[in-house]
Amino acid sequence: MPKEVHYSDYLQLDKILSAQRPESAELGLAAHDETLFIVIHQTYELWFKQLLVETGSVIDIMQSPALDDNSPELQTVVHRLGRCATILKVLVHQIDIMETMTPMDFLDFRDMLRPASGFQSWQFKLLEARLGLKYEHRYGQEYYISQLRQPEINRIKTAEKEKSLLQLLNEWLERMPFFNESTNWEHFVNKGPDPFWSEYRLRYQESLADREKDNLSLFDAVFYPEGSGQPVPAGEDKPRTTRSLSPAACRSALFIMLYRGYPILQLPFQLLHQLLEIDEQLSTWRYRHMSMVHRMIGTRIGTGGSTGKDYLKAALESHHLFKEIAGLTSFLIERRRLPPLSPEMEKRLGFIA
Amino acid sequence: MPKEVHYSDYLQLDKILSAQRPESAELGLAAHDETLFIVIHQTYELWFKQLLVETGSVIDIMQSPALDDNSPELQTVVHRLGRCATILKVLVHQIDIMETMTPMDFLDFRDMLRPASGFQSWQFKLLEARLGLKYEHRYGQEYYISQLRQPEINRIKTAEKEKSLLQLLNEWLERMPFFNESTNWEHFVNKGPDPFWSEYRLRYQESLADREKDNLSLFDAVFYPEGSGQPVPAGEDKPRTTRSLSPAACRSALFIMLYRGYPILQLPFQLLHQLLEIDEQLSTWRYRHMSMVHRMIGTRIGTGGSTGKDYLKAALESHHLFKEIAGLTSFLIERRRLPPLSPEMEKRLGFIA
Amino acid sequence: MPKEVHYSDYLQLDKILSAQRPESAELGLAAHDETLFIVIHQTYELWFKQLLVETGSVIDIMQSPALDDNSPELQTVVHRLGRCATILKVLVHQIDIMETMTPMDFLDFRDMLRPASGFQSWQFKLLEARLGLKYEHRYGQEYYISQLRQPEINRIKTAEKEKSLLQLLNEWLERMPFFNESTNWEHFVNKGPDPFWSEYRLRYQESLADREKDNLSLFDAVFYPEGSGQPVPAGEDKPRTTRSLSPAACRSALFIMLYRGYPILQLPFQLLHQLLEIDEQLSTWRYRHMSMVHRMIGTRIGTGGSTGKDYLKAALESHHLFKEIAGLTSFLIERRRLPPLSPEMEKRLGFIA
Amino acid sequence: MPKEVHYSDYLQLDKILSAQRPESAELGLAAHDETLFIVIHQTYELWFKQLLVETGSVIDIMQSPALDDNSPELQTVVHRLGRCATILKVLVHQIDIMETMTPMDFLDFRDMLRPASGFQSWQFKLLEARLGLKYEHRYGQEYYISQLRQPEINRIKTAEKEKSLLQLLNEWLERMPFFNESTNWEHFVNKGPDPFWSEYRLRYQESLADREKDNLSLFDAVFYPEGSGQPVPAGEDKPRTTRSLSPAACRSALFIMLYRGYPILQLPFQLLHQLLEIDEQLSTWRYRHMSMVHRMIGTRIGTGGSTGKDYLKAALESHHLFKEIAGLTSFLIERRRLPPLSPEMEKRLGFIA
Repeated sequence: MPKEVHYSDYLQLDKILSAQRPESAELGLAAHDETLFIVIHQTYELWFKQLLVETGSVIDIMQSPALDDNSPELQTVVHRLGRCATILKVLVHQIDIMETMTPMDFLDFRDMLRPASGFQSWQFKLLEARLGLKYEHRYGQEYYISQLRQPEINRIKTAEKEKSLLQLLNEWLERMPFFNESTNWEHFVNKGPDPFWSEYRLRYQESLADREKDNLSLFDAVFYPEGSGQPVPAGEDKPRTTRSLSPAACRSALFIMLYRGYPILQLPFQLLHQLLEIDEQLSTWRYRHMSMVHRMIGTRIGTGGSTGKDYLKAALESHHLFKEIAGLTSFLIERRRLPPLSPEMEKRLGFIA
Repeated sequence: MPKEVHYSDYLQLDKILSAQRPESAELGLAAHDETLFIVIHQTYELWFKQLLVETGSVIDIMQSPALDDNSPELQTVVHRLGRCATILKVLVHQIDIMETMTPMDFLDFRDMLRPASGFQSWQFKLLEARLGLKYEHRYGQEYYISQLRQPEINRIKTAEKEKSLLQLLNEWLERMPFFNESTNWEHFVNKGPDPFWSEYRLRYQESLADREKDNLSLFDAVFYPEGSGQPVPAGEDKPRTTRSLSPAACRSALFIMLYRGYPILQLPFQLLHQLLEIDEQLSTWRYRHMSMVHRMIGTRIGTGGSTGKDYLKAALESHHLFKEIAGLTSFLIERRRLPPLSPEMEKRLGFIA
Repeated sequence: MPKEVHYSDYLQLDKILSAQRPESAELGLAAHDETLFIVIHQTYELWFKQLLVETGSVIDIMQSPALDDNSPELQTVVHRLGRCATILKVLVHQIDIMETMTPMDFLDFRDMLRPASGFQSWQFKLLEARLGLKYEHRYGQEYYISQLRQPEINRIKTAEKEKSLLQLLNEWLERMPFFNESTNWEHFVNKGPDPFWSEYRLRYQESLADREKDNLSLFDAVFYPEGSGQPVPAGEDKPRTTRSLSPAACRSALFIMLYRGYPILQLPFQLLHQLLEIDEQLSTWRYRHMSMVHRMIGTRIGTGGSTGKDYLKAALESHHLFKEIAGLTSFLIERRRLPPLSPEMEKRLGFIA
Repeated sequence: MPKEVHYSDYLQLDKILSAQRPESAELGLAAHDETLFIVIHQTYELWFKQLLVETGSVIDIMQSPALDDNSPELQTVVHRLGRCATILKVLVHQIDIMETMTPMDFLDFRDMLRPASGFQSWQFKLLEARLGLKYEHRYGQEYYISQLRQPEINRIKTAEKEKSLLQLLNEWLERMPFFNESTNWEHFVNKGPDPFWSEYRLRYQESLADREKDNLSLFDAVFYPEGSGQPVPAGEDKPRTTRSLSPAACRSALFIMLYRGYPILQLPFQLLHQLLEIDEQLSTWRYRHMSMVHRMIGTRIGTGGSTGKDYLKAALESHHLFKEIAGLTSFLIERRRLPPLSPEMEKRLGFIA
């Protein structure tokens, strides 16, 4: 006989619904909108927790050596990344609710919150670290450390040391896991002077307009190991210091984009797509957040002591984690000009005929 | 020297973020999606709390005798109702997140939750009661009582006894508060055999197509006290048992819709509009919720022991609280055929010239 | 030297932007909102055209015998159905724009449009026919015919005779195309007294609560040919007159839902998912449309001479085309209770190891 | 007997639905997604037309001397600006549809469209000009001229010479039209050394944190005529060359924000709010548009011969038309510290008691 579960107990509503204690009421100057301010931030934090659960599970799966061609887990990865994007869309939408609070209404309690600030959301910083933001690329590094408590800093530091989703993506692309050992990607594409990529480079070159000729050296910089000017075996590729994805990983990602119709490339294509979706939603969230802060406090100093708008603006530029995947778009050529694949290769890309 | 406030303390994140304890993990059969299930319901409950805060404050204001022409509070009422509609839109959108959980994923932990169910959300029932849903109009009355705990039932019973937003709307419309005592609405519109409404009824009659002739008796039933067939002073109006809004209130609401351009009617028009928005968002929420439950469990019995879909479908029809306001649309006539207002009346509807 | 293309010519903006001629202006009673009314309907019709393009291409692909395991076309089908769902979401959202027109503003020109009405949108009716709505299941058949012109009726009649997406789905599921001839679905699942389905039925039976026992006969009615009470070879299955999907098709669809993690079932699962998405968006569109019409004209007769709300309400119930897929949810069992698949079967469901 | 109207004729569907002629089909290389590309741009242009209709009517009203306290037109202005914001939200949402076109699918026909480009949308440029964008503030002035045809350039040039919404806003705020002649704004606020603004400036100064002291000179620069350091009668105010709103207009706008609860300020507050909404939606549209172009073509040159992303990025910064209104937020003080208004003033701000 299983125990009975009650909705209120299950959701621990006693804790959830008793966790709103407005400062303005404490100070005897009750401001109506402060509850809204608390509730919206609590829902954000709940969703950040969920995003951490989802990205954590994706990272676990991608670390496992079992993520091969036939793993049902690849679908799980795509599905959960898709869920992250869906959650982020709601977080963007929630800004509409915040905007029902006018600047005058915020002023009623704003100064009572100092120095609390959204910068102190360690969950969001942890999320960024998990996705792949390194400490050295973070805007305003020292400031952000100064805002957090030691246990929170530790959690983020730990995440920065562990493999991020971005790094795991790089590794997964490098080993092109949807091929098995004996018939792997390098076997087809990279052994010796690679005929496929030589051919592709030629066709890419032909596709460039006069004013785009610089794109060819960009092509070489992205896809060929530094200084080579030529394709080399993938094992020798090393990620450049200034880029997150290695030439080998970029070649795999481009190949997936070009030939996404083949069965074995379909989920990998969706995986790349979902990462771009997450990046775009995160950046839309930062953008709308930035505009909202600007409308709310103008050039005044935020409760945390900084001008939030500048931070968000900088983050908008530099925290765009999967931009190297998005950037591969520059190197596509028209489908009808693609080099044909060998029958052997085509066979490997499909199911048993 | 004010105390310092920290984000995590202010939001009581220790409580909020420690309140997710999946049953499936307790039972050693951890189901990945159960955290999502808990988190989404917790965010719903947080937003329900906020909706209760907003509607509670609106009810307080509308109970106050001070809600007259010059009260800044009328704007507050409109603004907060608008916020409720904005929150409800996000709640509708959140269903997208729930739908990322497939039926198979839900099955992994569904049976562990029995008999917990969304029916046990006392906050939502309280919200319905506050807006104006009476116990006797509630679908499945006994079932719903059986699902709640005594203190929760008491809270809802209390709200059912207090004046609801719908009743306060009726009173506010009856006294047409945006006129002051000496120059009130009845003075212009309702004293003796009312020339305005006689004229309006005539013009309405002329506007009806042959097949719409029944609308005239509907007109009389809505706007004239029972059995009169003629306008009578507002004081004698009594709400009909089967309707929530009295004839006098309906006349005011129609007048507001017809002449909304005059300054004194602008916010009252927006107030009516926001109530319809809330009704529509609530009903869209019920509709999408119903479809989602159907996709999730089909014809199986829900965790709470009922077929949730049937309940939601019935609620969709009968919990439409402000439908009498929406229904007034049937009695509008074209702007260019409106009876002209007297100069005295026009003056009263505007600012000091 | 290719010809130069100019944006305005390419989009034929001379035609598009000169196609708004308000009746109210013609009659010398210019009503401001009539342009909005025209423009929003024109955008709806443009999107209907696009939905016809997309569903038409999907139907073409699904008719082709080449839609086998290795066809890149299956991904195209999933992608284009996903696009249809995305378009429908925008169409739902557009209702927000329509709702900025108040009933009084609509009245300014409503009567000038008679008897034009949204019922006369042949493109939408054609879309419904393409998806699978049969004439005999259409609500208000005669009325709808009376509203259309002969060439438009002909187009819809033709579509009703051709294979709809629903029928093609049935055929595709029956032949389980992601298995090739010699190793097809029946080979594994349906030859002789089928051990898989016997086992599944048993486990399903065990999963039912006392009050759900009727679900078992429902199970037999859906998955077994009429009167058999037992699995039979798929070839003998015939669609029941009252259902759109045959028992064999339903078995395939259920199998896809249960074992969606295997590579070969991943896109088929997504295909089913997108059809449910389309159904849900279409029904949300009808629901919001219905509410909007009710707010706009109340119980008055629509410009087309009918009470639009009743039609939309009936359509909401009966035009739900893929509800049999959604209904399969009733027959799922928990993942950990699924019958294990044979190694031979598992091999067929994956890529070459 | 009025003529009968048919839906297809009324909407001129023969023109609308025959206006899609893909270049790829003309060239015998039919690309499936080109119809989508055409249709989405046509819907954008239809909505741009509607935005021009709405902003045109708002401009007409705001030019009329009749826009006084009791004008029903003020409500019309607020309503139509709100509609513009609602339309813009749908335009932002439509980008989701465009994003269902992958870069590879776009490549199938991209080169066939040269040199057509979204830059050639004269309607959008006209909209920007109507709202208040001056030629000299437009990013890439010469480039944009080179992209348009002479009649289109003429239309935009004309609009640039006429009064824009931004200029009309400035004039309306300067004359504070919701006061009548004899009791106008200057009477209360600006005659002689103004006690209200002196008091307000003092209280604002007190509210500033140490690190915000620079805000005071910003305050003087925004609200006082150049070089004065003191309030002067509004008549002497001249808009600074680098700002769009004069000190007098800014004082009115701030006053509206501070005392929005008074009846006569309620609609003016909503008007300012809607302008900020439009600005925010336009800028979100530019931002998402920019991201989408980046995902679509990377660093390749757009069909119009430019890198669209750079243009959009620059426009994002400089085409933010109502930013001076948003910026006033910096100068608010807490409600409980506001200077009390005189009884005479309070009376003027309300309805007849």
